[in-house]
Amino acid sequence: MFSFESDYTEGAHPLILKRLAETNLEQLSGYGSDTYCESAKAKIKSACECPDADIFFLTGGTQTNAIVIDALLNSYEGVISAKSGHINVHEAGAIEHTGHKVLELPSHDGKISAYELSDYLKNFYEDENHSHMVFPGMVYISHPTEYGTLYTKEELTAISEVCHIYKIPLYLDGARLGYGLMSSSTDVTLPLLAKLCDAFYIGGTKVGALCGEAVVFPHKAPTHFMTIVKQHGALLAKGRLLGIQFDTLFTDNLYFTISRHAIKMAELLKEGFQKRGYTFYLDSPTNQQFIVLENREMERLKEKVAFSFWEKVDETHTVVRFATSWATTEENVQKLMDLLEELSE
Amino acid sequence: MFSFESDYTEGAHPLILKRLAETNLEQLSGYGSDTYCESAKAKIKSACECPDADIFFLTGGTQTNAIVIDALLNSYEGVISAKSGHINVHEAGAIEHTGHKVLELPSHDGKISAYELSDYLKNFYEDENHSHMVFPGMVYISHPTEYGTLYTKEELTAISEVCHIYKIPLYLDGARLGYGLMSSSTDVTLPLLAKLCDAFYIGGTKVGALCGEAVVFPHKAPTHFMTIVKQHGALLAKGRLLGIQFDTLFTDNLYFTISRHAIKMAELLKEGFQKRGYTFYLDSPTNQQFIVLENREMERLKEKVAFSFWEKVDETHTVVRFATSWATTEENVQKLMDLLEELSE
Amino acid sequence: MFSFESDYTEGAHPLILKRLAETNLEQLSGYGSDTYCESAKAKIKSACECPDADIFFLTGGTQTNAIVIDALLNSYEGVISAKSGHINVHEAGAIEHTGHKVLELPSHDGKISAYELSDYLKNFYEDENHSHMVFPGMVYISHPTEYGTLYTKEELTAISEVCHIYKIPLYLDGARLGYGLMSSSTDVTLPLLAKLCDAFYIGGTKVGALCGEAVVFPHKAPTHFMTIVKQHGALLAKGRLLGIQFDTLFTDNLYFTISRHAIKMAELLKEGFQKRGYTFYLDSPTNQQFIVLENREMERLKEKVAFSFWEKVDETHTVVRFATSWATTEENVQKLMDLLEELSE
Amino acid sequence: MFSFESDYTEGAHPLILKRLAETNLEQLSGYGSDTYCESAKAKIKSACECPDADIFFLTGGTQTNAIVIDALLNSYEGVISAKSGHINVHEAGAIEHTGHKVLELPSHDGKISAYELSDYLKNFYEDENHSHMVFPGMVYISHPTEYGTLYTKEELTAISEVCHIYKIPLYLDGARLGYGLMSSSTDVTLPLLAKLCDAFYIGGTKVGALCGEAVVFPHKAPTHFMTIVKQHGALLAKGRLLGIQFDTLFTDNLYFTISRHAIKMAELLKEGFQKRGYTFYLDSPTNQQFIVLENREMERLKEKVAFSFWEKVDETHTVVRFATSWATTEENVQKLMDLLEELSE
Repeated sequence: MFSFESDYTEGAHPLILKRLAETNLEQLSGYGSDTYCESAKAKIKSACECPDADIFFLTGGTQTNAIVIDALLNSYEGVISAKSGHINVHEAGAIEHTGHKVLELPSHDGKISAYELSDYLKNFYEDENHSHMVFPGMVYISHPTEYGTLYTKEELTAISEVCHIYKIPLYLDGARLGYGLMSSSTDVTLPLLAKLCDAFYIGGTKVGALCGEAVVFPHKAPTHFMTIVKQHGALLAKGRLLGIQFDTLFTDNLYFTISRHAIKMAELLKEGFQKRGYTFYLDSPTNQQFIVLENREMERLKEKVAFSFWEKVDETHTVVRFATSWATTEENVQKLMDLLEELSE
Repeated sequence: MFSFESDYTEGAHPLILKRLAETNLEQLSGYGSDTYCESAKAKIKSACECPDADIFFLTGGTQTNAIVIDALLNSYEGVISAKSGHINVHEAGAIEHTGHKVLELPSHDGKISAYELSDYLKNFYEDENHSHMVFPGMVYISHPTEYGTLYTKEELTAISEVCHIYKIPLYLDGARLGYGLMSSSTDVTLPLLAKLCDAFYIGGTKVGALCGEAVVFPHKAPTHFMTIVKQHGALLAKGRLLGIQFDTLFTDNLYFTISRHAIKMAELLKEGFQKRGYTFYLDSPTNQQFIVLENREMERLKEKVAFSFWEKVDETHTVVRFATSWATTEENVQKLMDLLEELSE
Repeated sequence: MFSFESDYTEGAHPLILKRLAETNLEQLSGYGSDTYCESAKAKIKSACECPDADIFFLTGGTQTNAIVIDALLNSYEGVISAKSGHINVHEAGAIEHTGHKVLELPSHDGKISAYELSDYLKNFYEDENHSHMVFPGMVYISHPTEYGTLYTKEELTAISEVCHIYKIPLYLDGARLGYGLMSSSTDVTLPLLAKLCDAFYIGGTKVGALCGEAVVFPHKAPTHFMTIVKQHGALLAKGRLLGIQFDTLFTDNLYFTISRHAIKMAELLKEGFQKRGYTFYLDSPTNQQFIVLENREMERLKEKVAFSFWEKVDETHTVVRFATSWATTEENVQKLMDLLEELSE
Repeated sequence: MFSFESDYTEGAHPLILKRLAETNLEQLSGYGSDTYCESAKAKIKSACECPDADIFFLTGGTQTNAIVIDALLNSYEGVISAKSGHINVHEAGAIEHTGHKVLELPSHDGKISAYELSDYLKNFYEDENHSHMVFPGMVYISHPTEYGTLYTKEELTAISEVCHIYKIPLYLDGARLGYGLMSSSTDVTLPLLAKLCDAFYIGGTKVGALCGEAVVFPHKAPTHFMTIVKQHGALLAKGRLLGIQFDTLFTDNLYFTISRHAIKMAELLKEGFQKRGYTFYLDSPTNQQFIVLENREMERLKEKVAFSFWEKVDETHTVVRFATSWATTEENVQKLMDLLEELSE
């Protein structure tokens, strides 16, 4: 059966496997001190137009969120997130496991609003009992969000300004950042993120790597961040595995080229659903498309193609997700369209 | 420069890279639910002669130790370890980060003794103040140890019996387990470990994999262990990366064959050092050899070959480590021998 | 200035001070092993009609909540609470500090509904991704709630039944339990709580003690609970301080008599506000009364009597709290009424 | 039976109970914001000759150690302590529970040496693998120590200087500080501690209070320390309980007068044991005296007077502790002497 279940159903972009094989027998030092990690960092700094950035490679998204957030917060602080934020719902409490509360703001199709953020912070400090409460110590956003939506440059700038006023860091979860940056309708770029955020990560796992996320601290990493990474059990002995992958992804724009491909496939898929009158849960400009299906229809479709359960709408309808990726073939999109055609007959 | 710095200086065994490439475009489900993970688990259970075991794949050693220990302990319990244990010295406090104390026993060339363990436990419960102290909740050993030494079947059995009497689990850190099992002077086997331990892991990172450790719970894994793994940020989206590697390592005895090769190389190297009158810090039957060097000699050697600083002996002498691995070539061992010859002239 | 700011503005009931003085020079063993602790426990078990209960004394409410919740939860579990719950808002993240997430249910005047609880649990287990989420491991309620409201016997029974079905413990925060039990409009008794809850505490600090809460585990305390208490820094060397206080409170119904007095004073106060046409934020049957004041009125009142800011209603109105206690005098209630009279002129 | 079991067998100094009764019905604000807390802080600052100190009141020793240490350390740091330190042995892992390792130095009758401390720190930073290890983030000492011994001014100064060089705070656990300061053979004073330490606490529980320890930060408390205290469940609603006690203890030198009394009683007791040829485990100049008893002798003595088991020496001998306090009567010391006389006949 073919699948649009997620953007991590295939292995890695073939060029990554090629580079891993080519460099396989080179003897390299461990724990991220090798030349490929250095080279990858240089290329990412350049892509971010941020020569002073500190960069670290980690293996997965939840791991990255938990470590960065724990490292940026004081013990008495929590992290502000949309109610729907990945850290608040689907990370098995990894943030709380490090001792910090997730402080919820309303989710607007996965996004928070600068206005509500500002209001939350203002109310917090005006509350006479706030010293008995969890201090808001940083802001977490994801881009694309859990629902594939994107912040505009204006929205990000506004959120960043609120963070500045309250002197709390802004952290952006870029698990699918490539797909966000290559969307047809975005004015957000890597250099902009490096300007507006205090930390963010460039997702590899969902954008062509076997595993790996590149954490960027545009200004300065927390002191002894490598030891913090080790303490959280996240320091790979063979750091080359991450270095070589990101070095490859940031050579000849590969990261962007393959992300753009996924977007094109998503646009085809979206068009196909639209043409056939399907209801979208919301309008997503990236590689994840959320469709509302009548339950029996969902069951029939499930027999022929894999996709993801997202959430129940009501007793008879369900939101499901179709995700494209760097590996999605036009052929499979066409196969899905044929299937829809067939079912509608 | 050539290197005996560690057993993680190369990438992966070529067969692993080959399998990753062959399976690369198969669409597989995430988080360890794919067919390769299933197949690898079946092969490991078979190698352990333990059909009821629960098996999980994690990415690194410190991560594995922290998660397994945290999962096996109650909040008021600590883990007993040799003073020299990896968890007690070189994991940046990852165990304490999960809230548990490491309770030290004396190290005898890296090993603990069943007698001293028994004595510790007896004294603990006889101490009238023990309810104000950290309860000994499990025993951690590594095999090979930090110093490359091995427990005998008799020693492991004795430790396991003490654990039984006090009803606390025995956990074995097998970061370099292959090299231990393939040593020329061991009577310990995988099925024996499955019989004596409540949990252990089969190290991949240092034995031919890019990354990855296979945790074996011979009886039963802790409840919701997968969620615990996720909570610690250790659940890979592309679980296939670990599954395919271990499936390959446990096909046609690859894990054992390549481990045996490393041992042979270590024996050559050891012989070479012995022949030239070098002082060994201790007698290691595995792939790590610890040599005492006069500091100026060390400096001269360092210019031509890479090895690891281990610890200072005194102001003028240092313990250093030479490690072989699945990837060590006989040619490089010979090169090292020539170098020693040259320096001794 | 006189005060209705809270129920902890005075010291202790005089009988408590008397008993502390009378027993002061007796030499007693430490850490809660003294005869007064034993006697207090026996009396509380009797009041709960629960001879098999395990009872422990702690010093404060947040401490008690954090320790009991941490002791009852597995590491991968969180605690369900009303959004307005004390643990979710006013305990500075003490629960998350122990590694656990607070899982929010809607608050209905401070209470949760058995129906919504059941729905939450059903949805959780039906969610295909629930193994990536925080498991609901117990239910926290407070009685009276943050808003002074009370559960009925029927409501508590329904919540308890849901907990039974899902096999998760029900824990009741009774910081102001005396005022709840002595309300004129309740059908809830101590023996009922011992029947329906798996853990609850009888608040002392706000009901006549200098400090102290009595934790009741009707069935069985978590293993080594005393060590867990010590580990959280909560074991008093002079456990007698807590034992003597609770022994006094549970002699000759003192706990109930003084609670009843506070309720009578609250009823007088409530009547007075009602008669003068004040707006109540909600209808509280216990010792805390929540009034909506126009801000200028609030400022004028503040000059003459102390009360608590609760929350903003809008730009010009504020909810404030007037609390009575065992120590409230009828004279002070009258003084407040005179003041209201005076201000209304 | 009379008891020398500990210095917390009686209640509080009568003047404390008197002040609690006198102030009992005053309406005071909560959480340590009352006038008695303010007054007590002023008096302690004055006694420390440290007008800029920040002072907080907590209820017990383990609680204080865990909170202060957690507040002073970064997440990747541990606390250096003597192997015999209270935090390392008898606090049920409260430090590790906050995520930090206790880093052991040898104990010399309970004390650490500045020389070994300096050596430890030097070796740590010279170790090429130190970024994989727990960073030494502060130094913990107790005064008197677990064995009743005292640091000299010279020793404390030397330790403090090492801390300065490595820029890590020095924290002194003064659970029995009064007895240390009033010893006949000390040159250490409160102002000296305020000069040499970055944090220390003045023990109340064991020196005349019902409960309570006064934490002194001579320079500056950690940011939002009150919220940190709340988060650890240690903020008393009726902060007056601690304020009034310390206000009383620091009025008219009460803390020092009653400490001096305990020392006098200890000297009498010590003399008595010496005269009768008993073996001392070590020479303690404070209120705790450690005697080595033959086990049968210990059993006989136990029938008539209470004292504490300390540790086994060998199969036939045990170290036991006799402690005096502010409440010890000369009559009871004499009774003990008579008993020894009687047993020796």
